[in-house]
Amino acid sequence: MQGLLPHTIMQSTRSYSIIGPGALGGLYGARLHQAGWETHFLFHNDFAYVKANGLRVDSPWGNLHLKDVKAYGRPEDMPRCDVVCVCLKTTQNHLLPTILPQVTKPGSVVILMQNGLGAEEEVAAILPEGKIAGGLCYLCSNKIGPGHIHHVDYGQVTLGAHTAGLHPLIVEIAADFQEAGIPTNTTDTLAEARWRKLGWNIPYNGLSVVLSAETNDIMAEPHTRQLSGQLMEEVLLGARACGYPIEAEFVQKLLAFTNKMKPYSPSMLLDYRARRPLEIEYIYERPLQAAAAKGVQLPRIATLAAQLRFLDARNRR
Amino acid sequence: MQGLLPHTIMQSTRSYSIIGPGALGGLYGARLHQAGWETHFLFHNDFAYVKANGLRVDSPWGNLHLKDVKAYGRPEDMPRCDVVCVCLKTTQNHLLPTILPQVTKPGSVVILMQNGLGAEEEVAAILPEGKIAGGLCYLCSNKIGPGHIHHVDYGQVTLGAHTAGLHPLIVEIAADFQEAGIPTNTTDTLAEARWRKLGWNIPYNGLSVVLSAETNDIMAEPHTRQLSGQLMEEVLLGARACGYPIEAEFVQKLLAFTNKMKPYSPSMLLDYRARRPLEIEYIYERPLQAAAAKGVQLPRIATLAAQLRFLDARNRR
Repeated sequence: MQGLLPHTIMQSTRSYSIIGPGALGGLYGARLHQAGWETHFLFHNDFAYVKANGLRVDSPWGNLHLKDVKAYGRPEDMPRCDVVCVCLKTTQNHLLPTILPQVTKPGSVVILMQNGLGAEEEVAAILPEGKIAGGLCYLCSNKIGPGHIHHVDYGQVTLGAHTAGLHPLIVEIAADFQEAGIPTNTTDTLAEARWRKLGWNIPYNGLSVVLSAETNDIMAEPHTRQLSGQLMEEVLLGARACGYPIEAEFVQKLLAFTNKMKPYSPSMLLDYRARRPLEIEYIYERPLQAAAAKGVQLPRIATLAAQLRFLDARNRR
Repeated sequence: MQGLLPHTIMQSTRSYSIIGPGALGGLYGARLHQAGWETHFLFHNDFAYVKANGLRVDSPWGNLHLKDVKAYGRPEDMPRCDVVCVCLKTTQNHLLPTILPQVTKPGSVVILMQNGLGAEEEVAAILPEGKIAGGLCYLCSNKIGPGHIHHVDYGQVTLGAHTAGLHPLIVEIAADFQEAGIPTNTTDTLAEARWRKLGWNIPYNGLSVVLSAETNDIMAEPHTRQLSGQLMEEVLLGARACGYPIEAEFVQKLLAFTNKMKPYSPSMLLDYRARRPLEIEYIYERPLQAAAAKGVQLPRIATLAAQLRFLDARNRR
């Protein structure tokens, strides 16, 4: 429906860029483009393919095949947009010091639509004057071919400011997302929201890889169901140590939520099976380091992280 | 060589029974038999095969093919021997209340040649007047066919009394083993020796299964080498809580020992690959329970135990 709205009644004329339009950025970028926002896409491997064939998104929100995508293969060719959505896996964040200065301008909002902890702080070091935010994305989506995304389920986005004073602008950007058909809300406590998301990501991403299992398998076995809860408890210990006292009932809520989910392969399991690098650093090691800096050890999480390091190294050898 | 010694110069005429002559009991029982001791074997699946074809042991200690093995298929058919060596996997210990009363007599010494904690206490409950001991076996040996053992490497046995006052008799039995060509020593602190052996078994058995890796792979990766040491530290915490203050340097010794080993598949990995039940209860859960009873949590070990429960259940479904 949103795609049929004439551009003239849009609430904003913000320009967007999507850095790394894969399973996540391809979906959200395609929605923004289709809804009429000026949206620029920085591709890596898929640039030539998308230039020639467009971008396809199969989705329960409606299938899209965008032929006229503003696609780029190099950051220096891109316009500097109002909102820069970083949709790379965190395993690619070593590229950000090169990319971001070329795609931002004074006033650009950089939104890190990524898992884990610590990316906003890194970007703040790259762009000391930058307006930086985070996006938490709850979705099940895969790239199934060049320029071809299969969005399976979910898709909610939570946006939150990292830079002080940015919240009102984040609320406006969330309204753009919402208008583009992306269910979006905002948080004024991004760091706590990131820890809450780790409450799910830490147990299920890691255990799914180590056990080669989907969430329903993990929840069906009493020992790993209990371990999932114990890993969540450690996440809460870490969050508390860092100043985010998440309520204890959150663990039971997450377990109940996961129990009700359809069988689900966490993104790390998909990465592992595709022999892509795993997001161990931002999902595991940064939280472990943050807690350790406050004198708190999280031994179950550390065990899982070490196992993942082993499996990831072997998987890509 | 020992097999050539005439029986008349033997130091003892003790009779032995081997309950469960697989990779471990087949090797040791064959040595005792070959060296001239009266040795009776309680088989399960392999009874008819061994009765017809004898027992073969391929070993760096010398190959044996024993045609005249005293083999039995049912405990009630066996003579009650002076020394009853329980060589079952601990996953079969639910059979002991049935077997042991049928194969022991007053004065029989029951030696639990098994991994993990707690079996001696269970047998003490089955045989309240029994003379009970433990055997710690450091060997790499596989059953590669019916009545056919392949002893690959190592083989040292440590015997220790569980029942008070039994130590002098254990020293004599160790001399029998030694004379049969089995490198054997004794300990007068069996419970502590069991914890020491767990210091190796807990990290390497579990990690080898979870990571599908041999010891050299685990030691070659910095994260899992560190995790191995941390798991050993937790074993020492448990041991200390239970009254066995093992010296802290033991961890570095075990790591150095394992570093120098040839690539090795721990028994639990062999069990897993053969889809046999894993010895999770005696190697992991009993130590966890013993420590918890003293108020000490061992979270890394508990994480591994839960993962093993999951994998074991799926593996045998």
